[in-house]
Amino acid sequence: MTYCVGMQLDAGLIFMSDTRTNAGIDNISTFRKMFTWEVPGERVITILSAGNLATTQSVVSQLEERSKVPHERRPSLLEAPTMFQVANLIGETLRDTIRGGALANGANAETQFGATFIVGGQIKGMPPRLFLIYPEGNFIEATKDTPFFQSGETKYGRPILVRAYEPGLSFAEATKLLMVSFDSTLKANLSVGLPFDLQIVPAGECRIGLETRIDADDPYYNEISKGWGNALKQAFRSLPDFELHLQ
Amino acid sequence: MTYCVGMQLDAGLIFMSDTRTNAGIDNISTFRKMFTWEVPGERVITILSAGNLATTQSVVSQLEERSKVPHERRPSLLEAPTMFQVANLIGETLRDTIRGGALANGANAETQFGATFIVGGQIKGMPPRLFLIYPEGNFIEATKDTPFFQSGETKYGRPILVRAYEPGLSFAEATKLLMVSFDSTLKANLSVGLPFDLQIVPAGECRIGLETRIDADDPYYNEISKGWGNALKQAFRSLPDFELHLQ
Repeated sequence: MTYCVGMQLDAGLIFMSDTRTNAGIDNISTFRKMFTWEVPGERVITILSAGNLATTQSVVSQLEERSKVPHERRPSLLEAPTMFQVANLIGETLRDTIRGGALANGANAETQFGATFIVGGQIKGMPPRLFLIYPEGNFIEATKDTPFFQSGETKYGRPILVRAYEPGLSFAEATKLLMVSFDSTLKANLSVGLPFDLQIVPAGECRIGLETRIDADDPYYNEISKGWGNALKQAFRSLPDFELHLQ
Repeated sequence: MTYCVGMQLDAGLIFMSDTRTNAGIDNISTFRKMFTWEVPGERVITILSAGNLATTQSVVSQLEERSKVPHERRPSLLEAPTMFQVANLIGETLRDTIRGGALANGANAETQFGATFIVGGQIKGMPPRLFLIYPEGNFIEATKDTPFFQSGETKYGRPILVRAYEPGLSFAEATKLLMVSFDSTLKANLSVGLPFDLQIVPAGECRIGLETRIDADDPYYNEISKGWGNALKQAFRSLPDFELHLQ
């Protein structure tokens, strides 16, 4: 499995992804799931991938190849005029890749080769935008009502996002929120694993503001992980107990 | 979907289940998923059901019918000498019901008719025991390492259980823990719904100590639900922010 979150804030975009892939529980590997195309000051586009690794790697390779040979028949991520067109382009590439694999392997293979992308970024002169792209190639965009997208093993880490997210969070606070959400997932599910990749894209700058990898001995992550366990217990204790009247 | 938890404590057993069933998102109903057979002081047996409603209702009806006609060929829940035999009996009835439905509807129907039971209780002179029964009819028993079972929509409510469970929790504290776990699930998933059923079985008494239904206007549940949101936010704020150095 996988766990990825892309989040829209007043301050810009923030992304986090784990790095565990598995084919069965006894075959796990570490693969980066965060990919970025950047022309600093002009555009920044980040993808978080979830799903069949062969599919996602193929899509990323195709996007990458095209971005290095501009003026091809198919436009590249670096030429698309808007983030909507970027999402369209990635969606089409994803769908064609899945269909190609399915055509070569029988009709039922479409699910097997499926993948989902969270795509966010900003092109100069336009606001930052965030999309969730489905295996079918279509996509939805984050709004004020639904300002973040999760992919992969989304459920464990969702309650804290739902409750603590605010658009006005600073990047420092949002990083903390993502750490807690990822830590809750990690504690409950073997298919999500360290290290995590973190990226921050400040609004209006069209460039990566911060990109870092959080590994198992990262002191801040460990402080959060341990601190969150204690803070949760304390939060739990702070609530009134049920008034019990046994029969 | 469904959310049920059965939990073993030093003090005894505690059970909670939601009541929402759905066949598609536009066809939801309220059904009780908690069933108890009790001979106060001699034995108490509680089932929490998850899965295909026709299957679970059929199993419960069969168990109920047999308990009213003792000395039948097949033993009843009220005659089984140990909780292990109780689990065996329920598992066999579940498996036979699923197989019967599948035989009548084609081989692939077995998954469709599937169901899972959490079963707990106590028979006089023996300790309380807690089981998770699979659609195949076999089952596992709770231990000190894994002292609670969840069924249905388990993921949202799991992180708080993993972090706040302790065997020494009082029933009042454990009720609070279950309320928080159920509330986290409810906030994130439409397929789990109020009212909830709560039951407490004090160790050594072989009877129901408390059974109550928690509905949407239950004052304690609302206090917990609101209080937990605030306590979580405060717990979150109490952790140090990430030290951010943008490039």
